[in-house]
Amino acid sequence: MRVDLNTDTGEAFGRWKICDDEALLPYVSSANVACGTHAGDPLVMESITAACARHGVGIGAHPGFPDLQGFGRREMRMSPAEIEAFMMYQIGALRVFAEYHGQPLTHVKPHGSLYNMASVDESIAMAVARGVARSMRKGETLVLVGLANSLMIDAAKRIGIPVASEGFCDRGYTSDGNLAKRGTPGALISEPSEVAKRAVQMVTQGKVTSMDGTHVPLKVDTICIHSDTPGALDIAVCVCSALKEAGIEITGIRKAIGIE
Amino acid sequence: MRVDLNTDTGEAFGRWKICDDEALLPYVSSANVACGTHAGDPLVMESITAACARHGVGIGAHPGFPDLQGFGRREMRMSPAEIEAFMMYQIGALRVFAEYHGQPLTHVKPHGSLYNMASVDESIAMAVARGVARSMRKGETLVLVGLANSLMIDAAKRIGIPVASEGFCDRGYTSDGNLAKRGTPGALISEPSEVAKRAVQMVTQGKVTSMDGTHVPLKVDTICIHSDTPGALDIAVCVCSALKEAGIEITGIRKAIGIE
Amino acid sequence: MRVDLNTDTGEAFGRWKICDDEALLPYVSSANVACGTHAGDPLVMESITAACARHGVGIGAHPGFPDLQGFGRREMRMSPAEIEAFMMYQIGALRVFAEYHGQPLTHVKPHGSLYNMASVDESIAMAVARGVARSMRKGETLVLVGLANSLMIDAAKRIGIPVASEGFCDRGYTSDGNLAKRGTPGALISEPSEVAKRAVQMVTQGKVTSMDGTHVPLKVDTICIHSDTPGALDIAVCVCSALKEAGIEITGIRKAIGIE
Amino acid sequence: MRVDLNTDTGEAFGRWKICDDEALLPYVSSANVACGTHAGDPLVMESITAACARHGVGIGAHPGFPDLQGFGRREMRMSPAEIEAFMMYQIGALRVFAEYHGQPLTHVKPHGSLYNMASVDESIAMAVARGVARSMRKGETLVLVGLANSLMIDAAKRIGIPVASEGFCDRGYTSDGNLAKRGTPGALISEPSEVAKRAVQMVTQGKVTSMDGTHVPLKVDTICIHSDTPGALDIAVCVCSALKEAGIEITGIRKAIGIE
Repeated sequence: MRVDLNTDTGEAFGRWKICDDEALLPYVSSANVACGTHAGDPLVMESITAACARHGVGIGAHPGFPDLQGFGRREMRMSPAEIEAFMMYQIGALRVFAEYHGQPLTHVKPHGSLYNMASVDESIAMAVARGVARSMRKGETLVLVGLANSLMIDAAKRIGIPVASEGFCDRGYTSDGNLAKRGTPGALISEPSEVAKRAVQMVTQGKVTSMDGTHVPLKVDTICIHSDTPGALDIAVCVCSALKEAGIEITGIRKAIGIE
Repeated sequence: MRVDLNTDTGEAFGRWKICDDEALLPYVSSANVACGTHAGDPLVMESITAACARHGVGIGAHPGFPDLQGFGRREMRMSPAEIEAFMMYQIGALRVFAEYHGQPLTHVKPHGSLYNMASVDESIAMAVARGVARSMRKGETLVLVGLANSLMIDAAKRIGIPVASEGFCDRGYTSDGNLAKRGTPGALISEPSEVAKRAVQMVTQGKVTSMDGTHVPLKVDTICIHSDTPGALDIAVCVCSALKEAGIEITGIRKAIGIE
Repeated sequence: MRVDLNTDTGEAFGRWKICDDEALLPYVSSANVACGTHAGDPLVMESITAACARHGVGIGAHPGFPDLQGFGRREMRMSPAEIEAFMMYQIGALRVFAEYHGQPLTHVKPHGSLYNMASVDESIAMAVARGVARSMRKGETLVLVGLANSLMIDAAKRIGIPVASEGFCDRGYTSDGNLAKRGTPGALISEPSEVAKRAVQMVTQGKVTSMDGTHVPLKVDTICIHSDTPGALDIAVCVCSALKEAGIEITGIRKAIGIE
Repeated sequence: MRVDLNTDTGEAFGRWKICDDEALLPYVSSANVACGTHAGDPLVMESITAACARHGVGIGAHPGFPDLQGFGRREMRMSPAEIEAFMMYQIGALRVFAEYHGQPLTHVKPHGSLYNMASVDESIAMAVARGVARSMRKGETLVLVGLANSLMIDAAKRIGIPVASEGFCDRGYTSDGNLAKRGTPGALISEPSEVAKRAVQMVTQGKVTSMDGTHVPLKVDTICIHSDTPGALDIAVCVCSALKEAGIEITGIRKAIGIE
């Protein structure tokens, strides 16, 4: 049994920081790096890719909507052609930093509202998958990370690119397998041991306990550890320990989906 | 005898256009494509790189300062580390589009104030050259295009990257070999036959007639045809004809500097 | 009988222009000036407000979404509090230029997707109206311009601010009184005499002929003349002549809604 | 004896914060609020002006260069006309929030590199002063805050607008009365009691001890308390106490310069 652990990072901008971007790197196997449109800038990208290389963490692009002030969390209605082109732009921009530090780009995970919209809107999901496919160079493998059971997973399969199903161990799920909306009671789980228990449950049982107590099938290849929740570091430590105790190997994203 | 002809292009942004970006492509051998910080956006980059591929024109990055409203023409005091990182970002972002259209990136030419500042400021020239060097992948060759006789040429040689010396056939030169400031009389030359004569003079004689009538040594590998001057198309046609009549081959930038 | 004629203007940005922003000013009574978030910048705002003052055209704010690359035409999901604050920001920013040129700000017309969303979404319509109300100084009157029959008109009435109903003489209407979507056949009317006839019909009969030939009630206080359609100037000339021939006075927006 | 105490505030942007913007408000008499170009956004401006109103702190505009990523600290070569227009834009944008909360705008203090450049460059100083003058409405008084002894003070006097001379009690001065460059030893003073002593010295003796021990004449109307230095709150508390103990009244900026 194995799973990839991923975290969003590189979310500073100019003088502004949200959290210590490097704090979680010792605990995860993959990092999703902001690419300068919803967060991040060239200096931030340069320094966080260097840190990922030092920690042996897989570097992935975390492309988002072009909306710094809204942090990519506001829905924007972009055409599929725009989304494809913005994906390519951000993937290319980040790749140069990863490669400068001797690392391949390993994966792409859409950010914020782009992730959410691509999970439920087929034309956006297809645009996201095409954006990844068009960015891949000969000999390169980029894994698309999408919400488990969502349209993003289907789109990647149709386009024919490798895909990883993502679970959120610190978020509540509804009984139909969707993430509960932020703001509803139970949508965020902050007790580290509870979060860790859910991570183990996802990997070992392929399911998660929903907010109303039912068991929802949830096969995950990678689990997200949010870096900006209070107590993020405690959660990361706790999840890592619990996974290892359960005999689960924390591994890179390619190995997690069985292509390496 | 041979020379590369280059033009700045892809300088639209969203709904805004400056000129017909594709009009000059039949006449030049290299295109410098804006990368989304002083002009250009992912959709513009996607469509102009497609056009370059169709026309067999070499695609180069045209990185500029992050200043859309000032079109990269306002001096900005960025640190060398920032300039390096911004160069890498823009080169990476453009490369993904070029490669999607089956083309390698061939060169990098800084834009506007970044070009001007790098011509006369050693630390900026070195940052520009390092930015190019750090962006180069194994097996890839990116030629830095810099003002003939400027510090950018020296910096490229010190860093050890290939470099092309650029001449401006539609601009007046001072007797010490610098470009006359825009706005001074004689700084802009608009008569197509006069512009063409100067292009031929640069290539065949390795010099240019300065504004006060002296001959200034000017060895050029590439000549810039501005796309946004009135009568740009007439000038391009006229320069092409004159070069061919003089037995000069218009060729790609690598061949122009003798590395291909 | 009287009506206000309005046009969107000040839609340049830095070096980029869409059309000659001043061309229509001799023909309209009100100008909607972009405020630097979807288009426009401080220099553009300064020069277009000066031109409006010279032409005796009422100056209004044309606030839009913070999305230069999308020209404010992409839907963005902003909270009502954000929309209010963005309205205030843009109104305040433009007012300083109008007042410097000795003119009061006369009106506010949301731009692009903000206009469209506020027409059909009550919470956005209320946020827009509150944004205008909160920006009004003692003794100042700002008229909100909204789509005739839309939720924006209702919101202005509930909030208690003056409102003008707008008609589009160059756009097709559906039989239920909505604007036909751009791109559908008949959505854009370009024949100047046809456009002019519709303008007269709206003012004299309080209705418009829809795309399927029925008559839709449409009471308008102001009519929009688009500045960026091909033949915009011809249309403006033609509409002005037709209105005058029909004995209709072209007047400022306050007089058009009877508060002056 | 009296003096105004001012602090820079409202320097968050979207999800990003630098420090607790409201923490110093109980200790200062004037706040310089970022206006959305180097920092701040409409929501931040709305909430910080509300806080200033609650605390009875005078609200001033803190206009900067249009450079979010550089936080307005990178020099940008803008023309005087651009600087004037950008000043007006930002002053107008902030004023609407201040007035909504029942407060007049009291002053304008340029931010970062704009402040530094205007201190030593006459054409920029004049552009800044004209920008303030052009933004003033009938009956309104906006005080320009400039570095004591700098060209900004001269420019304000020539233009004929009220001006306040600013001192920095936490910064080292050279013997010719300029601020020592950040990064040189002694450029930043962090011991609260030392900072407080210098504040009292400036007000009571009209001079400051320079880094090489000489006494430099420094007549100040307002003293800046930086909000983003470590220990800012301790410094503010200490400066306030020391001023009061020395019998110095902390007062609004108009009273400090004797026009109220």
